[in-house]
Amino acid sequence: MTRFALTLEFDGRPFMGLQRQSHGPSVQQAVEDAAHAVTGETIIMHAAGRTDAGVHALAMRAHVDIEKDLAPFRLQEALNAKLRPAPVAVIGCEVVPDDWHARFSCLGRAYRYRIVNRRAPLTLDRGQAWLVQQPLDAEAMHRAAQALIGHHDFTTFRSAHCQSASPVKTLDRLDVCREGEAVIVETEARSYLHHQVRSMVGCLALVGLGRWPEARMAEVLAARDRQALGLNAPADGLYFIGAKYPADASDMNARLPTGQVL
Amino acid sequence: MTRFALTLEFDGRPFMGLQRQSHGPSVQQAVEDAAHAVTGETIIMHAAGRTDAGVHALAMRAHVDIEKDLAPFRLQEALNAKLRPAPVAVIGCEVVPDDWHARFSCLGRAYRYRIVNRRAPLTLDRGQAWLVQQPLDAEAMHRAAQALIGHHDFTTFRSAHCQSASPVKTLDRLDVCREGEAVIVETEARSYLHHQVRSMVGCLALVGLGRWPEARMAEVLAARDRQALGLNAPADGLYFIGAKYPADASDMNARLPTGQVL
Repeated sequence: MTRFALTLEFDGRPFMGLQRQSHGPSVQQAVEDAAHAVTGETIIMHAAGRTDAGVHALAMRAHVDIEKDLAPFRLQEALNAKLRPAPVAVIGCEVVPDDWHARFSCLGRAYRYRIVNRRAPLTLDRGQAWLVQQPLDAEAMHRAAQALIGHHDFTTFRSAHCQSASPVKTLDRLDVCREGEAVIVETEARSYLHHQVRSMVGCLALVGLGRWPEARMAEVLAARDRQALGLNAPADGLYFIGAKYPADASDMNARLPTGQVL
Repeated sequence: MTRFALTLEFDGRPFMGLQRQSHGPSVQQAVEDAAHAVTGETIIMHAAGRTDAGVHALAMRAHVDIEKDLAPFRLQEALNAKLRPAPVAVIGCEVVPDDWHARFSCLGRAYRYRIVNRRAPLTLDRGQAWLVQQPLDAEAMHRAAQALIGHHDFTTFRSAHCQSASPVKTLDRLDVCREGEAVIVETEARSYLHHQVRSMVGCLALVGLGRWPEARMAEVLAARDRQALGLNAPADGLYFIGAKYPADASDMNARLPTGQVL
């Protein structure tokens, strides 16, 4: 048995989410079916994050265990061939130690959220960004975001379907910047509650629109009440962009696509 | 009558091309139908370029003449509302003099061609870039491209369907650079032959792959023979990114989206 770490890029639109679902297609099923077609084996994929329906990935990390003797490059090519026409691509593949686990070894997860801030509807970016048609003050959003950094009870930013044992998480980074007509939010944490990133982005947008004062961010966090949440940003703009692992277990932190964080 | 200059962004995939066609949807028809719905008038749209099926635009320039009294912002909003769900957006709209013509006043047209250069299939970029799976030497492509700059007979790079009176054109700029896993080609000229940009990009890719020596570019140009063409790049990666007009007729050269050339 060989454990292979995979780096996946996918367009989340056709999927019910990353995790296998009984009621529709998932990224997990697409990869497991492709791996079965390549090896004849029953393969279970474990991933660093469980993204929702419509959420994308530039560099999701995952692993699979395979009995068949295959070089990483051959496996990557074969998986990509069998994944067609699903919009999922294996952009990295390497052998890792048997105790390396895409989910449980993961020390940090990074997401990017992409807002397009203009009057005109989306064309080429449709389904790949959130259109906000009133002007956003990205600098105010960035300042307000800093109130969420650290170890907090994030109940306000937690979906009713969250399965996490505790609402307490540590947020390491939450940065907002403007790039032309886009406003980009990037975040890093060991882990998140269900809908936490989209909930944080939704509230930051209210600050950016001037509907909330910057100080409101600390107040809604302190409220520890889902009712205090202003807005949940849509899945379209959310991208899983990287996962961090112990340096001694893998050198994969260096393998992220150009421009990716972590 | 008021003449409005429009800046259009569109995803070329669902269209047979920019120009109205009897056999399928076009960008021109989408805009004209929207303008008719807004004004009740029969509107003809004139555009700076006639892009092919599947070719995109970040900033196509066009104009329409309208009798109804409408402020530019109101017209833009109304057109965008009526354009739904077509992936065409009016991202700029302003009143111009009656002798300003999107096509005939245009002094220069800029295109960008986007290649993704990696083994893995496209996911989020599908239909919006050309996937080249073998390594490309972008610097060699850039050097080879310079042989095409200037006033030449571009017959080699001309489609059999080209309606241009002469195969002689002046190419002002043809730059190639690498941005991570992408290779970007940008070009500027007063006008082009049909398929000229895609034909130039196809040949540059052969140079980048090492299948053609750099000097071959000057040879195929000199051949003035379509048979000498190596490869026609697909429509997916091609974007119309800007048009230049006399400074005294309009200040629209300054209105291009951030990061656009011209």
